[in-house]
Amino acid sequence: MSSENTGRELGLNLDLKFDAAGLVTAVTVDADTNEVLMVAFMNREALTRTLTTGKATYWSRSRNKFWVKGEESGHTQQVQEVLIDCDQDALVVKVRQKGAACHNGYRSCFYRRVKTGPGEPALEFSAQREVDPAAIYKK
Amino acid sequence: MSSENTGRELGLNLDLKFDAAGLVTAVTVDADTNEVLMVAFMNREALTRTLTTGKATYWSRSRNKFWVKGEESGHTQQVQEVLIDCDQDALVVKVRQKGAACHNGYRSCFYRRVKTGPGEPALEFSAQREVDPAAIYKK
Repeated sequence: MSSENTGRELGLNLDLKFDAAGLVTAVTVDADTNEVLMVAFMNREALTRTLTTGKATYWSRSRNKFWVKGEESGHTQQVQEVLIDCDQDALVVKVRQKGAACHNGYRSCFYRRVKTGPGEPALEFSAQREVDPAAIYKK
Repeated sequence: MSSENTGRELGLNLDLKFDAAGLVTAVTVDADTNEVLMVAFMNREALTRTLTTGKATYWSRSRNKFWVKGEESGHTQQVQEVLIDCDQDALVVKVRQKGAACHNGYRSCFYRRVKTGPGEPALEFSAQREVDPAAIYKK
């Protein structure tokens, strides 16, 4: 074991493998049910803030800034555990989600199913809204 | 509802939002427990093959080719359901995993935890190996 217990895949050093934008993928899941709530991105500093504050903090690619989940909506994510994958380019962030993770008012961003069958793939809803999205972000 | 029931976020058309490489993120989870097994990538054709064959099929960025999971190792993934997120750049692929999803012999690629506490973040193992990786890929 000792000879292989080193390196990015089997070692115990944090050695994030960033994409060209300096980011890793963060898969956020419900700590109790493991339901996938959302997929977002973190840079090194977002991970550090997540670990030290216990509040899930991402890097927003569209707004080009740190994004403390729920800061505006109140739908915060209290972090319970962070796992990392074999090649250290993806994280699983286990959280206690307050309200809806999705800005569209669904608990999870994955509220539609891809239907199988003949013809072009189409979608169907697989979840119901928790919250009126108009009530989440008040102007 | 009818006026908003259109478009990429709330409509029912498959309208994948690809990254610069023509890929979307695929988060593969155990269909029974929701445990995240791996994060990989699909292009449009990989999704079509996944839906039509029922075998999880990814696009390998390192090998630049389609990759039917388990084709070499026997550790196949039988697809139960595919969900898509609000902006259609990520999928959740619910599977029945045979054996180990990770090439390192763990059931999930997420076999290490990021430790919190003072000082630099470090990792610790959070899972035990299912399979000897030397036995997975015989030369």
